[in-house]
Amino acid sequence: MSAEVVGSNPYSRLMALKRMGIVNNYEKIREFSVAIVGVGGVGSVAAEMLTRCGIGRLLLYDYDTVELANMNRLFFRPEQAGLSKTDAAVQTLTSINPDVVLEGYKLNITTVEGFGSFMESLARPFKEKSSASPSGVDLVLSCVDNYEARMVVNQACNELGQTWIESGVSEDAVSGHIQLLIPGETACFACAPPLVRLSRFSIPCIHAWLQVVASGIDERTLKREGVCAASLPTTMGIVAGLLVQSTLKYLLEFGQVSRYLGYSALKDFFPTMEMKPNTQCTNAACVERQHEYVKKKPERDALARAKAEADRAVQDVAPLHEDNEWNITVMDDDDDDKDVFLDAQTTPNSQILPEGFLRELPDADDAFRKLDEAFVGGAAAQDNDLEELERQLQALNSD
Amino acid sequence: MSAEVVGSNPYSRLMALKRMGIVNNYEKIREFSVAIVGVGGVGSVAAEMLTRCGIGRLLLYDYDTVELANMNRLFFRPEQAGLSKTDAAVQTLTSINPDVVLEGYKLNITTVEGFGSFMESLARPFKEKSSASPSGVDLVLSCVDNYEARMVVNQACNELGQTWIESGVSEDAVSGHIQLLIPGETACFACAPPLVRLSRFSIPCIHAWLQVVASGIDERTLKREGVCAASLPTTMGIVAGLLVQSTLKYLLEFGQVSRYLGYSALKDFFPTMEMKPNTQCTNAACVERQHEYVKKKPERDALARAKAEADRAVQDVAPLHEDNEWNITVMDDDDDDKDVFLDAQTTPNSQILPEGFLRELPDADDAFRKLDEAFVGGAAAQDNDLEELERQLQALNSD
Repeated sequence: MSAEVVGSNPYSRLMALKRMGIVNNYEKIREFSVAIVGVGGVGSVAAEMLTRCGIGRLLLYDYDTVELANMNRLFFRPEQAGLSKTDAAVQTLTSINPDVVLEGYKLNITTVEGFGSFMESLARPFKEKSSASPSGVDLVLSCVDNYEARMVVNQACNELGQTWIESGVSEDAVSGHIQLLIPGETACFACAPPLVRLSRFSIPCIHAWLQVVASGIDERTLKREGVCAASLPTTMGIVAGLLVQSTLKYLLEFGQVSRYLGYSALKDFFPTMEMKPNTQCTNAACVERQHEYVKKKPERDALARAKAEADRAVQDVAPLHEDNEWNITVMDDDDDDKDVFLDAQTTPNSQILPEGFLRELPDADDAFRKLDEAFVGGAAAQDNDLEELERQLQALNSD
Repeated sequence: MSAEVVGSNPYSRLMALKRMGIVNNYEKIREFSVAIVGVGGVGSVAAEMLTRCGIGRLLLYDYDTVELANMNRLFFRPEQAGLSKTDAAVQTLTSINPDVVLEGYKLNITTVEGFGSFMESLARPFKEKSSASPSGVDLVLSCVDNYEARMVVNQACNELGQTWIESGVSEDAVSGHIQLLIPGETACFACAPPLVRLSRFSIPCIHAWLQVVASGIDERTLKREGVCAASLPTTMGIVAGLLVQSTLKYLLEFGQVSRYLGYSALKDFFPTMEMKPNTQCTNAACVERQHEYVKKKPERDALARAKAEADRAVQDVAPLHEDNEWNITVMDDDDDDKDVFLDAQTTPNSQILPEGFLRELPDADDAFRKLDEAFVGGAAAQDNDLEELERQLQALNSD
């Protein structure tokens, strides 16, 4: 992967992420495999983004065919109508970036046979595996449009101990979400809260689960009845963008990967939240992964301590900025003549930028702290409300 | 524009927005003209989204050529390298949706001649104009990558009194923004705050302006020096999605159009804010539009009163849900046996959904109230800090 700045190098603007101090090891992307389940309005765009980013290998799963009714979303073209979505996607993606290894699987993962092939293909490794992933792929992205398929992806990933990111767009086309699922560590897709356990979950969480339940009314049912769900290229493009952004952050280890990120288009609202696993989850593999996760706590703690010590040792030995190629100078905070602009950016978490470059957005730490305060307060109040509701429900049940 | 639910109808999923109660008049999109200035990583994707949405007419402006170094963003394909971006875009978009009227303008709007052609093309109306837009287009989208071109779009829109939306992505590829500019009503792009006027602007606003100044280092300069800005298909796709989502909300009158919406990928942070015009703006056309806006206040107030009265009259006469095709029943709030799920959604602003559908996300009003409280407190504190800074600066200037 060349970093040379010439018009003929498709990777120059990606490798520039290293010079900008965002990613340490961009070229490592060539070693990763990502499975995308569902090549529709979200999955196809996610596949195109990863292809243009130079991902090593993409595994694409779908059993559907391209039709003109899909043209209101990005990616597929009218002349592809009639082709299987996986064939059409492999065709387009190969022409965009022949460096990416593409595997199209035209199969329905919700059938017994399809599930077998799905598991088998996920197990096959790519080149010399560099990541610690327990399966043959480094990440699974769920881009399906119905509850049943989500539960199948959940089952497969729980069995394999494979981290995945779920995505979804609402039937009215104006909201969506992505959710990171780490078997044993976060809630799995079957960790749905029974009523008596409501108080462990916040209101947004319950709504998220409700949306999942609502997705049980899938497109096939709707179409049969002459009704269809709405969709927009905007919402689906944004959800695909957030999904692949999280994928890049997760694989290349930069920034923070949100556990849950929602998008509500009508008000430009983007809620985030955490979801803990349900110890009484009905999915046996989930509970098994939870037990393993708990058992490995001493190991995780020891690793974290070792890492912290190593970081301290490096800090003690190495000079802060050895070469200082951008001629950055430290400003004196006590100086009355200080530059108000630069000073406003001197926050604890600010990263050093090349000379002439300035951050586009305000420091997020401060705003996040305020958000956290507002939400933690809110969540606590909600928890109390839910405990009260739970008591009422128990009283009703005991009648 | 047919709403028929068949696989061969490219508009079925868009017309479904009407049935879902999101948009009243989706088919009106066929009457609108949108100008996109800059057909790069954001502009090309925005053009594709609007084309797939069935926009009436698109005007595309760029003077650049497709090269392989653009392949790390969506839209252009390797075989288009060497073509002008406008020609390549018109070619692809026509094949995606031949219903859209496409006009490609290969010109540099920052030259005298280019600016003349730009103004002339914006003035030409499309069919029988239905909107109240003062020019021949209904909205201008700025998707350029440098300060100079943004100032030219600003000049054109201020002269025409034309509403526009500006977009941008940072050089490190991990943040971006969109900003709605209504001449006379909001800050224009030249309303940059001189230091002595800082207290009128919040910290995020100042950072936004700084980003603009930083954009003065444009791609051409960077390339000449063997350095290039980083870019990602994710960030650019998300910004394009937010830009076109705002465009749809603005043209089809649904939801809320944010005046400023930022995106910071590292922390999934999406700040919003308002920007008032600067009465001492150096742009004469901006000041003229501001005067006109102030003069029209009595007219706006009278219209708002008339609309409120009309709304009240309709409410008094019409039954609440005449046909009730979804069999929605009103639940008794006093009933102890109430459903906790449904009750949690009975917020003042909740909209009625078809039976079986549930909202994906929590009600935004409540969360927004908390955010507002947190931010209004923060903004007030910032204002005070800025007044203090201003005093310090004035003291320095008087030395």
